[in-house]
Amino acid sequence: MTQTLDPVTGTDPQTRVDAWLARFEAALAAGDAAAGSALFATECYWRDLVAFTWNIKTVEGRDGVADLIGAAGARSGASAFATSEPPDEADGVVTAWITFETGTGRGNGLLRLKDEDGEDRAWTLLTALYELKGHEEPRGTHRPMGTQHGAFKDRVTWKERRQAEAESLGSTTQPYVLVIGGGQGGIALGSRLRQLGVPSLVIDKHPRPGDQWRNRYKSLCLHDPVWYDHLPYLKFPDNWPVFAPKDKVGDWLESYVKIMEVPYWSNTTASSATWSDETQEWTVEVEREGKPLTLRPKQLVFATGMSGKARMPDIPGTDVFKGDVHHSSAHPGPDAYAGKKAVVIGSNNSSFDICGALWEHDADVTMVQRSSTHIVKSDSLMEIGLGDLYSERAVAAGVTTEKADLIFASLPYRILHTFQIPAYEAMAEKDKAFYDRLEKSGFRHDWGDDGSGLFMKYLRRGSGYYIDVGAAELVANGDVHLVQGQIDHLTEDAAVLEDGTTLPADVVVFATGYNSMNGWVADLIDQDTADRLGKCWGLGSETTKDPGPWEGEQRNMWKPTQVDNLWMHGGNLHQSRHYSLYLALQLKARHEGIETPVYGLQEVHHLG
Amino acid sequence: MTQTLDPVTGTDPQTRVDAWLARFEAALAAGDAAAGSALFATECYWRDLVAFTWNIKTVEGRDGVADLIGAAGARSGASAFATSEPPDEADGVVTAWITFETGTGRGNGLLRLKDEDGEDRAWTLLTALYELKGHEEPRGTHRPMGTQHGAFKDRVTWKERRQAEAESLGSTTQPYVLVIGGGQGGIALGSRLRQLGVPSLVIDKHPRPGDQWRNRYKSLCLHDPVWYDHLPYLKFPDNWPVFAPKDKVGDWLESYVKIMEVPYWSNTTASSATWSDETQEWTVEVEREGKPLTLRPKQLVFATGMSGKARMPDIPGTDVFKGDVHHSSAHPGPDAYAGKKAVVIGSNNSSFDICGALWEHDADVTMVQRSSTHIVKSDSLMEIGLGDLYSERAVAAGVTTEKADLIFASLPYRILHTFQIPAYEAMAEKDKAFYDRLEKSGFRHDWGDDGSGLFMKYLRRGSGYYIDVGAAELVANGDVHLVQGQIDHLTEDAAVLEDGTTLPADVVVFATGYNSMNGWVADLIDQDTADRLGKCWGLGSETTKDPGPWEGEQRNMWKPTQVDNLWMHGGNLHQSRHYSLYLALQLKARHEGIETPVYGLQEVHHLG
Repeated sequence: MTQTLDPVTGTDPQTRVDAWLARFEAALAAGDAAAGSALFATECYWRDLVAFTWNIKTVEGRDGVADLIGAAGARSGASAFATSEPPDEADGVVTAWITFETGTGRGNGLLRLKDEDGEDRAWTLLTALYELKGHEEPRGTHRPMGTQHGAFKDRVTWKERRQAEAESLGSTTQPYVLVIGGGQGGIALGSRLRQLGVPSLVIDKHPRPGDQWRNRYKSLCLHDPVWYDHLPYLKFPDNWPVFAPKDKVGDWLESYVKIMEVPYWSNTTASSATWSDETQEWTVEVEREGKPLTLRPKQLVFATGMSGKARMPDIPGTDVFKGDVHHSSAHPGPDAYAGKKAVVIGSNNSSFDICGALWEHDADVTMVQRSSTHIVKSDSLMEIGLGDLYSERAVAAGVTTEKADLIFASLPYRILHTFQIPAYEAMAEKDKAFYDRLEKSGFRHDWGDDGSGLFMKYLRRGSGYYIDVGAAELVANGDVHLVQGQIDHLTEDAAVLEDGTTLPADVVVFATGYNSMNGWVADLIDQDTADRLGKCWGLGSETTKDPGPWEGEQRNMWKPTQVDNLWMHGGNLHQSRHYSLYLALQLKARHEGIETPVYGLQEVHHLG
Repeated sequence: MTQTLDPVTGTDPQTRVDAWLARFEAALAAGDAAAGSALFATECYWRDLVAFTWNIKTVEGRDGVADLIGAAGARSGASAFATSEPPDEADGVVTAWITFETGTGRGNGLLRLKDEDGEDRAWTLLTALYELKGHEEPRGTHRPMGTQHGAFKDRVTWKERRQAEAESLGSTTQPYVLVIGGGQGGIALGSRLRQLGVPSLVIDKHPRPGDQWRNRYKSLCLHDPVWYDHLPYLKFPDNWPVFAPKDKVGDWLESYVKIMEVPYWSNTTASSATWSDETQEWTVEVEREGKPLTLRPKQLVFATGMSGKARMPDIPGTDVFKGDVHHSSAHPGPDAYAGKKAVVIGSNNSSFDICGALWEHDADVTMVQRSSTHIVKSDSLMEIGLGDLYSERAVAAGVTTEKADLIFASLPYRILHTFQIPAYEAMAEKDKAFYDRLEKSGFRHDWGDDGSGLFMKYLRRGSGYYIDVGAAELVANGDVHLVQGQIDHLTEDAAVLEDGTTLPADVVVFATGYNSMNGWVADLIDQDTADRLGKCWGLGSETTKDPGPWEGEQRNMWKPTQVDNLWMHGGNLHQSRHYSLYLALQLKARHEGIETPVYGLQEVHHLG
């Protein structure tokens, strides 16, 4: 044992990683913050997904590591650190897939070691819980039998059990978790909770699962490619389109709910929710198929859409305008507007998609750009931005979706932009002719405050970009008219900008984005609770629309908040897939009465 | 090149296989039947799935191989034989996964070499077509984009295209292939044809896909385990039960039809079909949602159920019997029969399932055994019979479903029983106490004519067995009464056997099995066509209910028959998955006008 604790830099990667893990495990067991943090490099990041912190948390620098080890090292009961495959070494970094156990669960992760001052030190460490001991999911070798062999009086069939469960849920039995919102986020979480045996219910206002997608403008296709979009448990078949059309996504979600047996109520809206300290439960008033009903869950999850709370500016003249006016999220598509004049406010994804579809259907389209936008061509984003992790090439190289998710999660948010900048520089170079044309059209284009491009914009502010699937060319060549300015008011038949420019219009579309998810909380609970919760999303990067201080993780997403028993879930299909695991494990642990001491609960710095 | 043609027995398996493949390829190219057949052992089997024969065909012995090479070797244009992974050697047999091309397609297969007289000679060879050149499926790297990037006037969305296709199918456009029957067979084939771009339509009489399963007796679960049951393209998620309940199977099939975009008409029955030599098409009269319609496909596939044509004996007194009387396929389940007397005629799978469920619901149940039955315990069958190919253990060992299917397909039917006999001997030993109890109850039990057990019975006659999931014990211990004999007639309130035994009955269930699929052909087309087609299923093994002569393949299944443009498809989920590929490729080739010279078209020896 002492031998493996000797310095071993210079030997093979496996030996080096094994030695590091042994020392790390010993430091954790001893709660020895000094010894543990000394195993990390001067610049270092330890990201933990629920395994040690019962939180989603990145600590930075040796002080951060020391603090976490001091608080949670010994109590975690961590042991059995090991590599799950032979480590790689490249460019002076040894990368190792690891597994470990804690007192309550099993984890995996990714370790990157560097030689610093002749010692192997951790540059980045990801630790992620994947199951709770004694509560392993019934999958693979643990899958259910389906039938009970033998002969039993009054056997209950699968269908009868499902029917009985559906009839009792919400009347004689209560869900432990109520998930409000049944898009990809609610469905992925509902599916994981089902698997984990946590009594749950997903409610959604639409008539059918998938309507969240079906009801969007008709030309909408996913802007992320298929490899990035799998849901948990059931992957898209390999004939699935790279960019799935929204109705096909809707149908998939509907089938998924059925196949995964997600408890899901359609046509259900929640009108209020209140927490009782006395009963330690929520009282949620809902209307299901028009009938009022009270639900009493212990945990409340908002999965109402990270980009779901429409930001509709209050523009004078909306009442006198004789044409159609609506937010992009309510835009019906172009069919009714052939030969009409359309004005679309905004210049991000939805605006481009809508402008493109209107132009394709012979509308006369004007885009009003209010501020600078970042555009990348879809092909380039796929090839340069995602190709190593989420592509047919990645799959062929053994990078499964699950591995890609962990690699992605292992890159610390603090330095993620440094990995991104070169990729976007490459895209700028590759598509230079396009960007030159775009600039000539007068379009204000940017690459993010620090040139780190689309994905950082998504993480920081969830807005400010367009993944170009073709409509940018329409702006560049003038087929879609471009006007710079701020909307001031509407008249009977036009949109008028602050500078007096009058844009005749039969339809005005406000592609003006979305507000922070805690707006949903204000609507359903109250403003005080929304304020206690604070702004959702963003990293605190002190870039445009993402004010500091530095948070190091997405604010309030998938983790404990300042409001007990209230959780925020959302994001794209990737995030709905991956982070639903950690949210589900947190909820499962609470349902089972497992202790979940939260390390590093985030503070609130912004109200919304 | 000459060097690799030298004898190389004794060198490593890779070299030996490479050398054999090079010689085999040369013999094929030259159409040299003598040289080619000399590469095979005295006892040898070459099974071809559509790659060389445009048929499903096993040739046996050197004469058989010589005949096939002479007929199809040169014209196949076969080339590029290679191993796809390093060969294994065990017990004197070298086993190699191979790939190859023909003039029209790409194939894979499995080769087993033995040393005979100091030469490497083929003992078994499987060659299987998996795709047609120029008609590769749009999967993986060939998957569709989903959206068309760019801006195009009058773009048509996925939903609009799907709607237009649905509206035109059967009115302004005709399916090239009409598949009658939308159970797992029709759905799997429909899915493959969809992928291959063959205009097709699956019709089914039930209101919803999956009703074929939902409508069966309520206790029904699959008797085959999940690993054996995957459909093409979309595997069950890994939380799927080992033995899926019938309603869950039904829901899966319904979702699958939607996800895979199988053109499928529910509530549709065909009333007649006639072939016209003049127009070279079928005229099929159907009723869809009650409205008559004429379809004009070029190819007609019966996927109406290998076990679908109920065999209902014509028993005197059925009209005077005051209780319920029905075939097992129409049995509603036990709910209405608590406290009632039930008589179930037959002693195979359906009978046991129905007797068990009736007993569980407090009916007084009597089973009438007409002939000897083979019973194996489900656990033993899973462990000993299927475990190496279809199990969590197999998956962990790298035996994917696709590999398992090819391994299974590579075992020649002529000697398959010799592999099966030891497995069933092991089961007899393992479950000896059970079989002793069963024998004491008076149950007539057998292991098949040659002791080869359940799977051979399934292949030879499709009947004569029960996979015990619990009900056998009820017979063994007398909870379900067992009577030996033949049903003679019914009275007002009893079933009377030939020996005069009178069994008081409130319900009589005829679990009396199914007739040959060509009965469907007689119903829909005419008796003459049914007779030209002949008996379906069975190997010609000259065992009970499988008369000779030896056919070497399942009669008329998934391959050309004596009736042009008429095809029979069916079987369990495994067969529906695997053989639908070869049937789909045959249909695709005909649709594309690719020449498909059939080698070894089977003769008809039995009418049904």
